[in-house]
Amino acid sequence: MNKNLGRQSVAFENCITVTSVASVVGKKEGEGPLGARFDEVHEDAMLGKKSWEQGEAEFLKKALEKAAEKASLTQADIDYVVAGDLMNQSTSSSFVLRDMPVPFFGIFGACSAFGEGLGLGSVILDGGFARHVLVGAASHFCAAEKQFRFPLELGGQRPLTATWTVTGAGAAVLSLGGEGPYVRGITTGKIIDMGVKDMANMGAAMAPAAADTMAAHLREFGRSPGYYDVIATGDLGYVGRELVVELMAEQGYDIRANYTDCGIEIYDQQTQDTHSGGSGCACSAVTFAAMYYPKLVSGELRRVLLIPTGALGNQTTALQGESIPGIAHAVVIESAGA
Amino acid sequence: MNKNLGRQSVAFENCITVTSVASVVGKKEGEGPLGARFDEVHEDAMLGKKSWEQGEAEFLKKALEKAAEKASLTQADIDYVVAGDLMNQSTSSSFVLRDMPVPFFGIFGACSAFGEGLGLGSVILDGGFARHVLVGAASHFCAAEKQFRFPLELGGQRPLTATWTVTGAGAAVLSLGGEGPYVRGITTGKIIDMGVKDMANMGAAMAPAAADTMAAHLREFGRSPGYYDVIATGDLGYVGRELVVELMAEQGYDIRANYTDCGIEIYDQQTQDTHSGGSGCACSAVTFAAMYYPKLVSGELRRVLLIPTGALGNQTTALQGESIPGIAHAVVIESAGA
Repeated sequence: MNKNLGRQSVAFENCITVTSVASVVGKKEGEGPLGARFDEVHEDAMLGKKSWEQGEAEFLKKALEKAAEKASLTQADIDYVVAGDLMNQSTSSSFVLRDMPVPFFGIFGACSAFGEGLGLGSVILDGGFARHVLVGAASHFCAAEKQFRFPLELGGQRPLTATWTVTGAGAAVLSLGGEGPYVRGITTGKIIDMGVKDMANMGAAMAPAAADTMAAHLREFGRSPGYYDVIATGDLGYVGRELVVELMAEQGYDIRANYTDCGIEIYDQQTQDTHSGGSGCACSAVTFAAMYYPKLVSGELRRVLLIPTGALGNQTTALQGESIPGIAHAVVIESAGA
Repeated sequence: MNKNLGRQSVAFENCITVTSVASVVGKKEGEGPLGARFDEVHEDAMLGKKSWEQGEAEFLKKALEKAAEKASLTQADIDYVVAGDLMNQSTSSSFVLRDMPVPFFGIFGACSAFGEGLGLGSVILDGGFARHVLVGAASHFCAAEKQFRFPLELGGQRPLTATWTVTGAGAAVLSLGGEGPYVRGITTGKIIDMGVKDMANMGAAMAPAAADTMAAHLREFGRSPGYYDVIATGDLGYVGRELVVELMAEQGYDIRANYTDCGIEIYDQQTQDTHSGGSGCACSAVTFAAMYYPKLVSGELRRVLLIPTGALGNQTTALQGESIPGIAHAVVIESAGA
């Protein structure tokens, strides 16, 4: 048995199937290039609730329920929920689970939540502790701006390095056994902080962590970037992507041919005024669900390395002059025929 | 193989040893009944840093380092860190890990963090994914009051139902194999919300979750409360303890003989003006480390059921009129001879 590869990586012994995925997003996401591929697009950012925070929780609820429904599972079939979001004290996740009496592991990895969730979910399944784990991640543009930056009513100008927090939620059912696509392995991230303090340049804050995890992954699995049809980081946007390409080149990896970022894919930079791209816990979750998962099912893609990325500061630490730690968790998802 | 017992519980197949524990606390905790048993007591709540938040991170850093040191492990020997705290975006945990290049799973379960961490750490070990996992949890009275309630400078009067957030951090090294004490099983909590909205009565908000997990644990493991020498919830205090006793009696369990709460043990209510008792992520972590762990090593205690409890609201949700969801994660720790 040698499922532990090096310091950070695990290759799973059992078949961990991504049985279903779900993506539920807001209006702006629906107007983007992936618009037609999301399960649900909602015009109302509050989804009938009274606040943006309640709206975020509602997006997550719909995504979790949709993923379970697509897997033909009831709440009783789900052994664990692993979920996270961006709200203080992860309230979106906790509040949704009030209506879902399932054992719950709350996680916090900022926008890397979907990667951390897929990783822990797979560990739980591969270890034989469950049959089905439901993983979810949510974020909300208005709730995030209010919490982390400025009141929306202020109409503050956003610098070109800024990303646009995705409104929505993504979810996935992971199952022990099944017919794929499979989670074949993970590379769990370390905290990397290169001293970036600009809350309007999260891409730069997270890029070193993304490159660190990506390089560790390739090294420990003994692979070249070309092994993957797509390598997609979570929410670095254009600014962060450039940095990752550079940082990887410094380590001898040319990733330009097959590397992108979910924050680049989800919006049309030219027409949607999203500057550096998309961000937020939902960014990698819904992009994976809408864009990559269907292609893994059809076999159009055989091997995807998804690397959700997180920036781990808050408004208090920013005011105290702290830099922004980053983290990135890599997940290998392969089609049944890969 | 039948390690999955019922809906929420797992009995581990391998020996998961709690190799070491560490407790690093502030002045008030040092003046309490467990004062002499903590590894470190610090007069300076900021530990030489410039803010309470930075102080909280420093407490966690010292606890993690102390636990590793007591287990004679270097950073390179630690396969994963699993940690959580109360700060928005769990910054204490993330910031500490900047100096600790170890694969990191950030968790959020509010004050149930130590239970969630011991649970996930044990799952990772039992599944064969690691040799050593370092678990930590931190909280800070001043940082928590500032974040969740009122500025300390306001000198607000605290109602008698209020608890006092423990300043400090606890940590534990879990290892695969070893000579005990052992984590024998876990019962992972569900979110339970009975509608309590009073941010100054967290004991009442969390008690239903504690009772739910405790009853599920006893039912799924087929045990009576008397199986355990001690059943200790995390931070319900006197108010919450009464409610748990009542809720358990309704389900036919008389737990009065061996049930206590870490929030009751850590302070002297009569002389320390702590009202309902102690709370915070550190409460169960340092009380377990200082009070129960040594007795499990000596054999004075044979079986302990530790149930860290978390209240999952924040100040925004409180202002929006939301009730406070609770969660509780149970961990069975037994002496080598049990």
